[in-house]
Amino acid sequence: MSANVPTDIIFSFTGLIRRGGLTGPHKDGWGIAFYEDKGVRLFHDPEASSQSQIAAFLQTYPIRSETVISHIRKANRGKVALKNTHPFVRELWGRNWVFAHNGQLKGIKKEKLDSFEPVGTTDSEAAFCWLLGKLRRKFKNPPASHVLIDAVEKLFHELAKRGVANILMSDSDLLFTHCSNKLVYITRRAPFGHAQLLDADVTVDFKKATSEKDIVTILATRPLTGDETWNHYSQGEYRVWRRGECVVN
Amino acid sequence: MSANVPTDIIFSFTGLIRRGGLTGPHKDGWGIAFYEDKGVRLFHDPEASSQSQIAAFLQTYPIRSETVISHIRKANRGKVALKNTHPFVRELWGRNWVFAHNGQLKGIKKEKLDSFEPVGTTDSEAAFCWLLGKLRRKFKNPPASHVLIDAVEKLFHELAKRGVANILMSDSDLLFTHCSNKLVYITRRAPFGHAQLLDADVTVDFKKATSEKDIVTILATRPLTGDETWNHYSQGEYRVWRRGECVVN
Repeated sequence: MSANVPTDIIFSFTGLIRRGGLTGPHKDGWGIAFYEDKGVRLFHDPEASSQSQIAAFLQTYPIRSETVISHIRKANRGKVALKNTHPFVRELWGRNWVFAHNGQLKGIKKEKLDSFEPVGTTDSEAAFCWLLGKLRRKFKNPPASHVLIDAVEKLFHELAKRGVANILMSDSDLLFTHCSNKLVYITRRAPFGHAQLLDADVTVDFKKATSEKDIVTILATRPLTGDETWNHYSQGEYRVWRRGECVVN
Repeated sequence: MSANVPTDIIFSFTGLIRRGGLTGPHKDGWGIAFYEDKGVRLFHDPEASSQSQIAAFLQTYPIRSETVISHIRKANRGKVALKNTHPFVRELWGRNWVFAHNGQLKGIKKEKLDSFEPVGTTDSEAAFCWLLGKLRRKFKNPPASHVLIDAVEKLFHELAKRGVANILMSDSDLLFTHCSNKLVYITRRAPFGHAQLLDADVTVDFKKATSEKDIVTILATRPLTGDETWNHYSQGEYRVWRRGECVVN
C-alpha cells in the first residue's frame, strides 16, 4: 500500500492472509511492515497467515501508515523459518529499507556482497543485500530521488535477468515496484465506492473510512477484490509510488 | 532473558509492562525482540506499555525464545516516536544485532559513524551504530567468541565514559550486558520454586513450566519479583550470557 494519509490496511490484509493456507498455497510464513514516519513496525511469523494468531490480532488492531509492505510465503529456496520470512529489513543512509519478493533468482546467492549479508538462506534476502550493497557503493550519501529511482530501476532489471523478480521495496519515502510476471494495482480516490473481497465474505464502504482528499493505492500479486477494476503491470514494468500516486512508470 | 531452552517470557513481561505508565514512569514507548535461531521477531509501539494493545496481546501469546531483549522507554533524548523506540536492530556479519539502553551518553551523537547510521534521534541508537561500526571496521569477518567478547567490553567501557550505559545487546548467540548504575539478574534452575511479581498480583510455579535441565536467567533494571534473591551488578560490571549461563564476568 501507498497512501497520502495514514491509512489502515485491515480490509486488504483480511483478504491477503486467507491466501496463506486457506484460499491459496502460500502457507510458509508471512510478515508485514508498517512505516510510521521513518520508523517501521514489523510483524513476522513462520506460521501460515490464515492460522496465525498474530495475523488474527492485526485484523482487529488498525495501524495507520502511509506505506505498508506485506508478504505471504510459499517456500522454494530456504526452509520455513523466521529468518527466511519476508519482508526483510536493513538500514541504509539512516533509512529503514523493506523488501519483499515473489519469484526465484538464479545464481544470486553466489554474487559477491558488499556491506549487507543475509541472515537467512533465501535468494530473496540475498538479492536485497546485493542491491543495497550496490546502492551504498554507488552513493555514499543518499542521492536525489530521481537519481535513486533510476539506480533502483537498473538494479531491478539486473535481478530480473536471473528469473522472476516481482518486487516491492521501500526506503520509507518511495515504494519501488517491479513486475516480472504478476503484479496488479488499484488506486482508490474520491468518489469512493464499495468493494468486496475475493477471499472472504467481507465488504467495505470506503466512503465511511476516508475523506475527499485521500488517495490510496493497493498492489498485490492478484486482485484482492472482485467488483473493482485492477490494473495489470506488464512484463518488466517498473513503477515508483509516493503517497498513493505513481511518480514513475 | 537468556535461556538454554526456548522459554516464554510472559511472567516477567507482565511485570515489566506495568512499569510503562502504571507502576513506573517509563511510558514513552516499548519494544521487545525474540530470537528464534538466527531470526528475530520484533514488536515496537510508541504507546505506553501498560496501555498497549500489542503488549496485552503478547501477554496471551507465548513466544518461546532463548534470548529476549525488551525495553520500556522514558524519553530524554529524542521525542516519543516509533523510530526512537528500543530495542534497535541492525545486521552485521549476517547476524541480527539487537540493542537496548538505559541512560544518557554525552556527545555520542557527534561521533563520526562508519557503515551504520541512526534512523531516529536518540543517543542510544547513535551509540549502537557507533559500536557496530567499530566492530565492522575491526573485524571484516566475525571473530571467535572470546575475541568478540573482549572487543565489545572495550567498546562498552568507552561508551560508559560518556555517562550512563546500562546496556543489553545480543548478536543472536551471546547476550552482552553492561551496568553503569542499575542492573540486576536472577538465574533460575532446578529445584524450581514459586515467584510473585512486584508490579502485579501474579504468581507462578516454575516447576509446572520447566524441566529439570532448564536454566533461565532474567535481567532487569530493578528486580521483578519480591520473594526471590536478585543479584546486583556492580558499577562498570560487564557480563556475557549464553543459554542462561554467565560465560564472562
